[in-house]
Formats: sequence, structure tokens, C-alpha cells
Amino acid sequence: MSDIENARARRRERPDRASRGASRKPLPRLTNPWAPVEILRKDQLERIIEGAFRLLEEAGLEIRSAEARAHFRRAGALVDEESGLVRVGRDIVRAHLATAPAQFVLRARNAERHLHIGGDVVNFGPVNGVPNVHDRERGRRFGDHQSLTEILKINHALGHVHWQGGVVVEPVDLPVPLRHLHINRAHIACSDIVWATRGVGRVAALDGVMMSAIEHRSTLDDLARAPAVMIVTNTNSPRRVDEELLEGIMTMAEHGQCTGITPFTLMGAMAPVTLAGALTLQTAEALGIIALTQMVRRGAPVVLGGFTSNVDMRTGSPAFGTPEYVHATLAGAQIARALGVPYRSSAVNASPAVDAQATYETAFSLWASIMSHSHLINHAAGWLEGGLVASYEKIIVDCELLRGWAEILKPIDFSDDDLALDAIMNVPPGGHFFGSPHTIARYEKAFYEPILSDWRNFENWRDAGAKDATMRATEIWKKTLESYVPPPLDAAVAEEIEAFMQKREGEILAAS
Amino acid sequence: MSDIENARARRRERPDRASRGASRKPLPRLTNPWAPVEILRKDQLERIIEGAFRLLEEAGLEIRSAEARAHFRRAGALVDEESGLVRVGRDIVRAHLATAPAQFVLRARNAERHLHIGGDVVNFGPVNGVPNVHDRERGRRFGDHQSLTEILKINHALGHVHWQGGVVVEPVDLPVPLRHLHINRAHIACSDIVWATRGVGRVAALDGVMMSAIEHRSTLDDLARAPAVMIVTNTNSPRRVDEELLEGIMTMAEHGQCTGITPFTLMGAMAPVTLAGALTLQTAEALGIIALTQMVRRGAPVVLGGFTSNVDMRTGSPAFGTPEYVHATLAGAQIARALGVPYRSSAVNASPAVDAQATYETAFSLWASIMSHSHLINHAAGWLEGGLVASYEKIIVDCELLRGWAEILKPIDFSDDDLALDAIMNVPPGGHFFGSPHTIARYEKAFYEPILSDWRNFENWRDAGAKDATMRATEIWKKTLESYVPPPLDAAVAEEIEAFMQKREGEILAAS
Repeated sequence: MSDIENARARRRERPDRASRGASRKPLPRLTNPWAPVEILRKDQLERIIEGAFRLLEEAGLEIRSAEARAHFRRAGALVDEESGLVRVGRDIVRAHLATAPAQFVLRARNAERHLHIGGDVVNFGPVNGVPNVHDRERGRRFGDHQSLTEILKINHALGHVHWQGGVVVEPVDLPVPLRHLHINRAHIACSDIVWATRGVGRVAALDGVMMSAIEHRSTLDDLARAPAVMIVTNTNSPRRVDEELLEGIMTMAEHGQCTGITPFTLMGAMAPVTLAGALTLQTAEALGIIALTQMVRRGAPVVLGGFTSNVDMRTGSPAFGTPEYVHATLAGAQIARALGVPYRSSAVNASPAVDAQATYETAFSLWASIMSHSHLINHAAGWLEGGLVASYEKIIVDCELLRGWAEILKPIDFSDDDLALDAIMNVPPGGHFFGSPHTIARYEKAFYEPILSDWRNFENWRDAGAKDATMRATEIWKKTLESYVPPPLDAAVAEEIEAFMQKREGEILAAS
Repeated sequence: MSDIENARARRRERPDRASRGASRKPLPRLTNPWAPVEILRKDQLERIIEGAFRLLEEAGLEIRSAEARAHFRRAGALVDEESGLVRVGRDIVRAHLATAPAQFVLRARNAERHLHIGGDVVNFGPVNGVPNVHDRERGRRFGDHQSLTEILKINHALGHVHWQGGVVVEPVDLPVPLRHLHINRAHIACSDIVWATRGVGRVAALDGVMMSAIEHRSTLDDLARAPAVMIVTNTNSPRRVDEELLEGIMTMAEHGQCTGITPFTLMGAMAPVTLAGALTLQTAEALGIIALTQMVRRGAPVVLGGFTSNVDMRTGSPAFGTPEYVHATLAGAQIARALGVPYRSSAVNASPAVDAQATYETAFSLWASIMSHSHLINHAAGWLEGGLVASYEKIIVDCELLRGWAEILKPIDFSDDDLALDAIMNVPPGGHFFGSPHTIARYEKAFYEPILSDWRNFENWRDAGAKDATMRATEIWKKTLESYVPPPLDAAVAEEIEAFMQKREGEILAAS
């Protein structure tokens, strides 16, 4: 008898999953109960870290901010003002690394959704920083304020991410200098979890800190003691960091808020073609800038970010979710663990469509992120086309992946009753457990309830329109958006945010 | 700067991947370099095994073969001939379990493709035992001899599976009593790796052993000393094994060939609704039949199979690749490890289409299978609709998953040259590595080359027809089939197989 003969006999008609509501209770804080998968031997780990220190000492980083260079100079680094090159010894780096916290908490407005970063905690974040959006009804188009808020609302209703932001999608219908204000207001209005602010430039970062302080009814000092906001930022690999990035980083550190430093080390493009070389460069750049955050403010929360992947060597197109990406993620988190700082990775793909490729590339990068013990998993809902598009349908597919993983990470526990010896003995050989009291007492909550998966048989599925997962996802995000309920927001906070925005819009427009 | 701005700048046009050849070098023997992910605490593991022993002792299995019951009786079990119920003490089970090998090798005709089962080795097998086939050009239809051989050829050309068979798809155009002969001949003609024979009934199993002996130019005694063929078979859960299954199992064991024993324990249907209960039942049934194989022939190679998954409790439809499936797979392999026998799992899904759902369910079950240290991963190429369909397009999607994992499992190694400190120092800050001598010396073989993934930018992809991964997969399997080259087969073996088939067809038709 084949595996499927019995299965076939069990199949019956069932209602369409998309016809039910899609809003879910938010995911709880997730912890990974298993040891991380580690791919570097101890000697390999040490050689990469040693290599990173040597790069910082001998090659240096081009630090394109006089203010940042001044921090490095005061800390004892060798600074060439003409080239901007900063060479910094390992003792200096190690001394500053030592003040960066291994774990910390960012406050959410909803006290049940504080963001714990470090240790065994796993956090999922949404697609971020993309110029375009796509859904099957309205097609591919530039991001705008409407799509930004729709995506924030869908994410809030689905409850599958642990933070939102920074930019999510670029609202191109708003003036560039004002966008960060509107994005931050959307974060505060549409959800109640931790958000990231735009991290490019002092103005955007500082406005983010100020708006977070208003949301939390905190002074800036209080906010520094109990941080709430973050930026997720890059370096200009190889070995360069532009002034605007440095300003954002220094602003966040000054105010004790969280900075995620992610070198952009695509193997063969902005980094060596070898995994070891790219990781060495990633580690060097991140270490240099992490040290800077601690020079600015000892103890400022900081996360080492990894984005190392390969490119298609015939075209230069970036690839994600590849075996190389998996290796880089597992190794990157291992390096961060050795350095004592939390790690950020991503669940990403380079597919042009919400299809099997988008799904397997995302699934590969997601398991690597989780099993590496990455603490922040960015772009984990909605990312498509290597980060050129936020896809509404992909959000739904990813929600299933993330909620599935959340269920998988739950510790197994069972009682004697779960062991079910009596129940088994009460069912005759060749019988079934459908009507067993043991089943009836448990069946309603026995299993994970998927949001997207369709388990009907072929005939019923075909007769209902033969909708594949991507087509069903359209119905689900639409229902989710319809069912969205905004989170509570104190009227005084909302008013103060509006007043702050009016004031800042006036100031920014006057200054430009 | 967002992650994608640099990435966007790197994108250029590239040719369509499907236009290139799809045949690949076969995957080598794969070993998993990492510790298995274990979800059961030691006390939980012990309680499940203790529960399984209690079930065998107190509840027993209904063994619907007088010959099998006689084996149990001679071994000291309590046998009720009227009900067929066999209750067997743990000492008897343990004594027989002890003679089952923890690892062994099945011979392939191609000596480079021997199948190593046990230890850290990971093996992938194709979809098996399904009644229907589907491809996008010819639609959904019953399996037949043509589709069977096409699938065997595609698998051989892609080189992504480590064994083939047993039934793959049912060739419904052939008379039932003769099908096994034609399936086995197709295995021998279309490929040169280890194959499984149909395991239902003495006739099919014995003909499989005989044809394997012909393929290997071995006597049956030689074949028993160096086994080459296997069956992948089920029990009739709960606690029943039909006569035909027992005959197949005993026949294989008598001849020293490999038996995979897989209870069909869907939680809430043929097994308790709880994970612990279903695993206890799975373990009890498998242990009882593994003991039988050793009663028949000490040392006969045997594999404990797990197929525990959940069902949709509203409809009874089986589900695969769910969080429950992941838990059952991780726990099942852990139990088999504790018992000292190899483990078989599956990479499966319940999707009606080759879409995101089919891919994430398969990806979930595949990572669980690999990280649990399952030794045989069945149904890992082409399975769809919960095992009602073998999909040509899904074979291509799965090939990418399997080849990706094979690459991921490769040990990381790097030289000082790979560390690339000199190369990094020779590229100025903000520069790139495209033209670096370090890159040029390595780029051709630096990265895994996908078979299906399309990394072109949206515009180029759209202008080339906007083909999603499933559409591209059609082109790939067609090219793969065109490019198929049969493996060498000694003319004398081919003749002897034909003669054997003629003789057996006559005998079978005369007897029926």
C-alpha cells in the first residue's frame, strides 16, 4: 500500500480559507530553543576576526565625516584628514566593543510588544527601503503614502512582525525632505510596536528620536535610559561610510537609541568573491562603526548586520537565498556571537514574481537566519525582486512562513495524557481516531491553523477557481486590510505628533 | 542608504536560464556536518520509547499473516491466532533490534552511486507511489508507462536523487499483476542508481530481488551479502499490518535486502491527535515490524520510517510540511537514533498547484528532514497534492531545493588567499571587486549555479514573457528530457532482464 491510498480516502470538501478573516493575534516574543547551527571552525572564526582587525589597522575605513573622524582621533586612531582614512588599532576597537550591550530591550507603545534583542530571541521585521510596490490588482508602481500605510496596516492586522520600518516603501508622492516625518507618523498611527526611523542624515534621525519621545511621553533623557527607536543602516562597502550615514548613526548613538550597522558586501561586487573575504570585510566595517557608536556614547545599543550575498557573475545581479547566502548568514551570526553583539540578517529573495522561486529563496534565507540565532530578521515580509518591490501577496506568503516558524520554535511539552496510551488501546487495530474522546477533546486547538495553505482535493480546488497561493493571497490581504482596526493611541500624543510635524515641516521647508 | 540602492545599480540584462542545458553531474554522497536538531528532552524520548514498548506488550499489533505470526510465536511473543493479535515483550524486541544494522550500503549498478544509509549521510529520493501525473502542457492525468519512464529519465539527467522507485507513478496502462516487472525494467534501463521495488505481496518483492540479482550479475546469496534493492512500505495504522505488506517485508528480509517500515500515522485520523501519541504509535508499529525482519533474517537491513503528520480536523484532509510535520520529523529521527536504526522521512506538501504553498511546505519538511539527520528523504522530487500527483514542474523546483541543500551541506574551507586581505587592501574605499584579479581568478566557479532561479531585473523578465518559476520549469524539464542520455547497461544484462520478464509474464498470466 502506498502512502497516499489512505490519505485519498480521507479527503473531503472544505471551505475556502481565504473566505475567513485574516487578522491574527500578534506573535509573542519568540525564543529559539536549539543551539545555533555553526559552520565556522574555531580557527576559521578566529582568522576572520583577526583579518578584520588587520583591515581596520592596516587598510582602514574612509570615514566621510569630520565629526566622526574627530571621535576616532580622540579614541587614539590614526586619521588622515585629507583622504578621510581612519586606521584604528584592535585594542581601541575591543575596548569600545566591550561597552556595547550583548542584549537590550527597545520599548514599544504596546507594553506587550517590547522588542528584546539578543540572547535566544528571534524577531521578524517587514520589507524595508524599497522604491516600488506591487499587488495583483493594481500592478507594479512607485510606492506612495497610501501603499505605505496599507502595508503597515496589513502587517499590524496579521501580527507576524515584531517591529516595523524604517522606510518600508518610499512614499514618492511626498517631498523628499518631509518623507521621514510622514513615515514616522504612519508607524505611530497604524501600529503600536517598535519602529525604525530613516537613518540617513542628522535631521531624519533626530526627528525620529523626537517623535519616539512624544509617542512614549518621554524626555530625551528618559528615552536614552529606556530606548525605543532604531535605524537599520548600511556602509558604502568596500571600506567607506558616507557623511549622511555617519550623521544618522552618531545621532542615534548620542541619544542612546539603537543602530543596526549592515555592511553591503555582495561577494564579487562590493566585496571579495570568496565567503571568507566578504565576511572579513563585513566584520571589519561593522566593527569600525560599532566602535564609533561607543565613542559617541558608551553603552549605546547596537546591532551587527549581515547582508553578505553573492551576485550573478555574468551580469552583476545580486542573488539572495542562495547557498552562499545561507553560509554567510550562519557564519555572520557566529562571528557576532563571538564579538558579543546581537546580529541582524534578512529573509530575502531575488525573484521577479511571487512564485516558487520567491518562496524557496526566502525559505532558505529564513531558516539560515533563524538557525544562526540572528536576532533581527529584516525584510521578512513582503520583499521581492531583490528589494526593488514590496509585494502585497508576498506579505501573505511570508506571514505563513513566519507563523509556521513561530509554531515550530515552541517548546514541545507533553503530559501522560498526550502520550495517549489509553486512547490508542481503546481504538481497535485498523480503526481510526476521528471520533475518539481523546481527539474530540483536543481537535479544535490541536494544530497550527494556516492563513494561506489550501488543503482541499484537486477537484474542489479546481471547481472553486483553481486559485494558486499567490491568487489566494490577493483575497487575503484585501480582507486583512478591510478588517484592520487601529491600535489605541492617546489623543494627546496624536495631537502632539501633529503639532511637531507642522512645526518641523515649516522649519524644513524654510531651510531648504 | 537602503540595502537595495547599490543592488539596483548592479542589475543588468542576462540570458534566460531555461535556454541552457539542464543535465547536471549527479549529486555526490552527502553528509550532514552539523549536529542534529533535537526537540525531545531525554525524559520525553524515554517516555515515548517506553510507551511504544508498552503498546507492543499490552495492546499488540494485528499481524494478518499466519507465517509472520509464526515468526513472532517462535521468538516468544504471545499470539492469538483468532484475532491475529501479537503481543511482544520488550526484551524480545530489544534483542531483535540489536541485530539490525545501524548503517549499511546498498549497491548501485554505477559503483560511484552506492547508497550509504546511516550515520551522517543524507539521501534524496523521488516522488513515489502516486496515481496521477501532471505537467503544464498535457494536464492532469493517470500515470502510465510513458510518464513513468519520462520521470525516471528526467531524474537521471538532473542527478538530484540518490535512489529511484519503488513505484514512482502507477502505470495504469499496464495490467496490475505485471506492473512491477515493467517498473523494475524501467529503473534498470533509465538509470544506474539504487532502486526500490514494489513491496506489496511476495510475488512483486521476489521478482524485484531477482531482477536486481540479474542487474548486478549476482547470485541471490551474493545479493544477500551485498544488498542492492529495497522496498519502502507502510503499516495499516493503527496497529494492523495486512498480509500482502507482511509478505513483501518477509521476502525482502529473507533475501537480506532492505526494508523501510513506515507507519501511516496521521494525527487525529489513524493516530492520536497529539504529537506524543502519534509518535508513540509510530514507534510501536515500526519496532514490531523491524523485530519481525530480524526474526526472518538476523542482520537484514531495515529503516525506520516516519510519516506522522496532521490532518485538517474540519475535513480530514492530510496536511504536510506543517509545523506539526516538522516536529514529528525532528522527533522521529531522534527516536530512531536512540534505537540505533536509520530513519526515513519525506519532503512533502499538500498543495494543489506548483506554487508558493507547494514550495514552502516542501521547504519546511525538507529542512526538518535534513536537520533531523534523516537518512532517506523520500518523495523529495515531484510530489504534489499530498501524494496524488507526480508533477513534472515540481521536479524542477525540487531539484533546485535539493541541489541548494547539497551545496549548503558542503564543508566550509578557506585558505589565506580566500581570506583575501591583500585583495581587499588593493581595492580603494568605495571601489569594487568586479575587475579585481582575485575575482577574475575565481568567478567562474565561485558560486552555486541555479537551474531554475531567474535573477534578471523586472523589465527584462517581463519583456521575455514574464514567466514565473513554474512556467520556466516546463521549459526546463522538456529540455532535460531531450538531453537525456541512458546510462551504460551491459547487453547481456538487458537480454537476461527481457528473458526474465517474458518468463514471469507468462507465469503470472497463467496463474491469474
